[in-house]
Amino acid sequence: MGADRRIPVVILGATGAVGQRFVQLLDGHPWFRVAGLAASERSAGQAYGKAARWFLPEPIPEWARTMEVVPCRPGIDARLAFSGLDASVAGGIEEEFARAGCAVVSNSRNHRMDPEVPLLIPEVNAEHLDLVETQKRRWRGGGFIVTNPNCSTIGLALSVAPLHRAFGIKRLVVATLQAISGAGYPGVASLDILDNIIPYIGNEEEKMESETLKILGTPKGPAAFGVSAHCHRVHVSDGHTLAVSVETEQRTTAEEATRVLGEFRSPLAPLGLPSLPERPIEVRDEPDRPQPKHDRMAGKGMTISVGRVRPCPVLGLKYVALVHNTIRGGAGAAILNAELLKAKGLL
Amino acid sequence: MGADRRIPVVILGATGAVGQRFVQLLDGHPWFRVAGLAASERSAGQAYGKAARWFLPEPIPEWARTMEVVPCRPGIDARLAFSGLDASVAGGIEEEFARAGCAVVSNSRNHRMDPEVPLLIPEVNAEHLDLVETQKRRWRGGGFIVTNPNCSTIGLALSVAPLHRAFGIKRLVVATLQAISGAGYPGVASLDILDNIIPYIGNEEEKMESETLKILGTPKGPAAFGVSAHCHRVHVSDGHTLAVSVETEQRTTAEEATRVLGEFRSPLAPLGLPSLPERPIEVRDEPDRPQPKHDRMAGKGMTISVGRVRPCPVLGLKYVALVHNTIRGGAGAAILNAELLKAKGLL
Amino acid sequence: MGADRRIPVVILGATGAVGQRFVQLLDGHPWFRVAGLAASERSAGQAYGKAARWFLPEPIPEWARTMEVVPCRPGIDARLAFSGLDASVAGGIEEEFARAGCAVVSNSRNHRMDPEVPLLIPEVNAEHLDLVETQKRRWRGGGFIVTNPNCSTIGLALSVAPLHRAFGIKRLVVATLQAISGAGYPGVASLDILDNIIPYIGNEEEKMESETLKILGTPKGPAAFGVSAHCHRVHVSDGHTLAVSVETEQRTTAEEATRVLGEFRSPLAPLGLPSLPERPIEVRDEPDRPQPKHDRMAGKGMTISVGRVRPCPVLGLKYVALVHNTIRGGAGAAILNAELLKAKGLL
Amino acid sequence: MGADRRIPVVILGATGAVGQRFVQLLDGHPWFRVAGLAASERSAGQAYGKAARWFLPEPIPEWARTMEVVPCRPGIDARLAFSGLDASVAGGIEEEFARAGCAVVSNSRNHRMDPEVPLLIPEVNAEHLDLVETQKRRWRGGGFIVTNPNCSTIGLALSVAPLHRAFGIKRLVVATLQAISGAGYPGVASLDILDNIIPYIGNEEEKMESETLKILGTPKGPAAFGVSAHCHRVHVSDGHTLAVSVETEQRTTAEEATRVLGEFRSPLAPLGLPSLPERPIEVRDEPDRPQPKHDRMAGKGMTISVGRVRPCPVLGLKYVALVHNTIRGGAGAAILNAELLKAKGLL
Repeated sequence: MGADRRIPVVILGATGAVGQRFVQLLDGHPWFRVAGLAASERSAGQAYGKAARWFLPEPIPEWARTMEVVPCRPGIDARLAFSGLDASVAGGIEEEFARAGCAVVSNSRNHRMDPEVPLLIPEVNAEHLDLVETQKRRWRGGGFIVTNPNCSTIGLALSVAPLHRAFGIKRLVVATLQAISGAGYPGVASLDILDNIIPYIGNEEEKMESETLKILGTPKGPAAFGVSAHCHRVHVSDGHTLAVSVETEQRTTAEEATRVLGEFRSPLAPLGLPSLPERPIEVRDEPDRPQPKHDRMAGKGMTISVGRVRPCPVLGLKYVALVHNTIRGGAGAAILNAELLKAKGLL
Repeated sequence: MGADRRIPVVILGATGAVGQRFVQLLDGHPWFRVAGLAASERSAGQAYGKAARWFLPEPIPEWARTMEVVPCRPGIDARLAFSGLDASVAGGIEEEFARAGCAVVSNSRNHRMDPEVPLLIPEVNAEHLDLVETQKRRWRGGGFIVTNPNCSTIGLALSVAPLHRAFGIKRLVVATLQAISGAGYPGVASLDILDNIIPYIGNEEEKMESETLKILGTPKGPAAFGVSAHCHRVHVSDGHTLAVSVETEQRTTAEEATRVLGEFRSPLAPLGLPSLPERPIEVRDEPDRPQPKHDRMAGKGMTISVGRVRPCPVLGLKYVALVHNTIRGGAGAAILNAELLKAKGLL
Repeated sequence: MGADRRIPVVILGATGAVGQRFVQLLDGHPWFRVAGLAASERSAGQAYGKAARWFLPEPIPEWARTMEVVPCRPGIDARLAFSGLDASVAGGIEEEFARAGCAVVSNSRNHRMDPEVPLLIPEVNAEHLDLVETQKRRWRGGGFIVTNPNCSTIGLALSVAPLHRAFGIKRLVVATLQAISGAGYPGVASLDILDNIIPYIGNEEEKMESETLKILGTPKGPAAFGVSAHCHRVHVSDGHTLAVSVETEQRTTAEEATRVLGEFRSPLAPLGLPSLPERPIEVRDEPDRPQPKHDRMAGKGMTISVGRVRPCPVLGLKYVALVHNTIRGGAGAAILNAELLKAKGLL
Repeated sequence: MGADRRIPVVILGATGAVGQRFVQLLDGHPWFRVAGLAASERSAGQAYGKAARWFLPEPIPEWARTMEVVPCRPGIDARLAFSGLDASVAGGIEEEFARAGCAVVSNSRNHRMDPEVPLLIPEVNAEHLDLVETQKRRWRGGGFIVTNPNCSTIGLALSVAPLHRAFGIKRLVVATLQAISGAGYPGVASLDILDNIIPYIGNEEEKMESETLKILGTPKGPAAFGVSAHCHRVHVSDGHTLAVSVETEQRTTAEEATRVLGEFRSPLAPLGLPSLPERPIEVRDEPDRPQPKHDRMAGKGMTISVGRVRPCPVLGLKYVALVHNTIRGGAGAAILNAELLKAKGLL
């Protein structure tokens, strides 16, 4: 592989649910090459195919199956670390890698609300990358941390961003129907979710309420409007559904909002980021879409789908949004962030 | 059965999903005796056990299995008709029975919004029964029609009623996660709902928005506040979950609201209605309840459960409610209505 | 409770899946009173309602919610111990209790194949209780251990017993479709079983193949015929389905076999055991029954259902059997065993 | 499309469940071009996107969405007709097309057992194509009918074929766990299958028992060994699982059988049939595979997976097989048959 000029990357927490998605989505990536699969001491030393209890429907890539798992310590030959670590350990390990000069692109929540850490959706707030320079002073080694939003937040923030830009958001209420894969693996016990709903996901509502404002704000500070979230776990494998009611600063109609959502395009298209979907948002006009089973894989899982845009008798406008929670709402989001870093010369 | 002094009743649409619940809940009822099982011409003449494709987990009562199905035409010896008819035919048949002098207690939507027809939740708006006298003039034969709300509306209207009484409601947003049994039988195809959500139920949002106001209004007219509903079909057999955000006229706290909901009792308790639950609302304090699997059968399916009462950053107050959609939200609601009619001397 | 003359019992492993069923089924038991809820050191000292993550749809009994969990050590005032312990620890703890003079009625597999320990289905091999006397010598304290079969074995052994008695069994092939509750709690991850089948359950096939022969044998030794099992985990909460093909020594017909199965009654009926179902086996004649959702609760979960008795082109006879795996195939089986012990004066 | 030299084909029953798979799998097919989408008179004249209630997770191809549905009558410009018709109408319509000179490649059961109609699995019994010549005399117009097996039969016949060839089959018992898509659309009601098993599929056991023998026989007549099937509907979207116990004429071991299954290759590989999978059978060595969620798409759904090959205490050998029921067990099988017809110069 002497001629492989792709950037060597390490996946932190490679055996977990998010880690597996990183492995799957980085398989054959044109810019990045997985140079290390890092996990807990317990897994280190084993072949990845042994250490990871692979649960994705797609087969485990052959190179990954046989690669030896290493512990989550700097020293791996990699300029970039993707972190799918559990929040209980992510904080410290990510800082260690930043201090060691690594660009850490994290899916974990630990640093998301740090004012010096960008909470990034490339199509929405690429300008938050400016925070990287500020942040670099902190870690000395030249490393830094960049994060992507929580899996349900991204569906909200990305769908509401064009409306925010066009009309201003005054306040919004969102109810979620979240897939079990969002809880990791093994995650939700089958006895708890078969023929059932769990109307609670720890800290999820708080995350949606705060992260959304940070994303839609400026590098200097969060946006200031009311967000209220109701979060539910439902019996769906992948794909979070969001029912959103929103009040805009400037009044609008369902037709106008539909147009704004449908015309939304990423200003980053010219950069040629491999994971950037053609359309960040797909607006559907069937009365009963989007649906997780049919629409979660839109844009290879990187496009969110919006449907049922209609008047809300209380807040003015309502719609349904769907996001693939482990691709656009997880590993795919982090990879897109890393691609943006590279394109901007930050790697 | 010469000594059986219970009131003979007929079930219209007895072979359908709601009809089956009527059969099951009326089995051994102390006040009512099923004298007729009526269904379409196609089923008439067959034994009920043959004509109905019984789908409830509880076994079919023996008396019902062998009873011959009759067509939906007046002439059956019954002063009271429970209607579980499909809306496509319910309107005309129910009117025919009213004209023939029958008290028609209907679960169908056809007459719910008729200003002369009570849309009744006994614990909430028993005074709407006054409409019966007005209505009797219409049908000549002395019959009349009484309806119960849509299966998702009742969870909303019943849970919001104590708050409306105590603080006044200004507006509310509700998102529902509705069970497949709400679509009747065969209803939702398994291929459509396995690993999926359907974010649309025909006319359901409109029904929730209009019926709630009628119920919480007076016999003279509906209440006037904003209601916005988002309805979803989910992979649960029984039990509709509702995520409610509500703004009250008079400001209140989550604690105060919890107290008001928990202390809510039916003023009808002294009447001894057999189906009246001890508590119309059960307030739960676990962080992750109510859940359909655990709580739908509270009060034999006649008690709704409310939990997670907490502040809403947008509308002030939010909570989760759960209602058994085919008992409290269907046949059980109609039977309770009929019991009230009897207790009030209207049968 | 001074006047409570019921036998005080302790539940070992009370917080687990089987333990919870013991708690639920012993609630209000006429002969036994739960005097102790024992679990791991980690849980000891906590209120049971806290220590157990209750997962059954039925609510936790009030007395249990507040009872303090004790460690699994003899010294509890109880002559009888129900064991729902995990096999990794059950062996030693059960022996300790037997040595301390306790009658241990276990649902765990550890001692099932011990030639001195009865593997009991009261309706089938009550005479195996003779082993208790032999066994008592071993433990000195006068205690002993009695076990019930594995959750899938009992459906096979109980359904095949009348055929074995009437015609002799030559060999049989069984394929199972087993409920997730059979794997305990949390047990099967929802991501593993949603839209899936797992065609493997560790040691289950071996258990079915060996336990069946011990049950249908004599106290001196196992029966000798061929048993082959294929075990699968399926997406059902409760109720194991078994597809059985059987070759009998003496040829018979489907009609004759149906009659024999339907007429099977327990010789123990006169003993008045509270958990003994009126019929151990219910034979159904619908073409598509038994089904878990409809039939698992037959006889309060203690009756197995058999259907589709028909000729097998290969082995002569085939049928479907259904057993509630955590009642008849778990805690309920153990309680029935304990009732038999009491009725026989062995407690 | 003047330059499109692909063979024009018509899909009969194009709006149904099998028909939709034909549309999806023929999208971009290198040899065949869909020239007609035919369905009932009720659908005729509508755009296919309207007439078909598309239920596959994959999006409907654009060309199909807008194509006008035609009635199922000869006269369409097509030399080849794929039939996904319901058995209630398939018989007559297929004959009409054969009489009109069309090659009818059918997935319906109506003509499968006709001694002059090949029941074809290209890798197994390509020599049965000889029957086409005989058959042509019957229809005069030069047309003929070729069929593929029932969706569960194919998993059995294809997995047992190498064993039959190597060792001879004496008898076998199979239990199936069949996906809901096998029942068509809308097919199984969600209320019937959520938390349930249906241990019965009309005529399925008979079909497996007879079709398997025809496939493994010669063009002159069926093989003669005992086959016994137990069929169950389970809560899986796609992928039939089969638990097979088999007795071979010549004794063998699990290792030997594993080798024979793993080395099985199609003699047709040189023909370059586009839908022929590289391996008809994939043998897995994990203890808990194959599983529908992970393995149904092996070889784009055309490879069956076999695992857990092990000794059977009763019949000698047992294993688990998995087949994608609507691809290899439906439309994909028919398309492969058509490709073979073309390669053999029969179109």
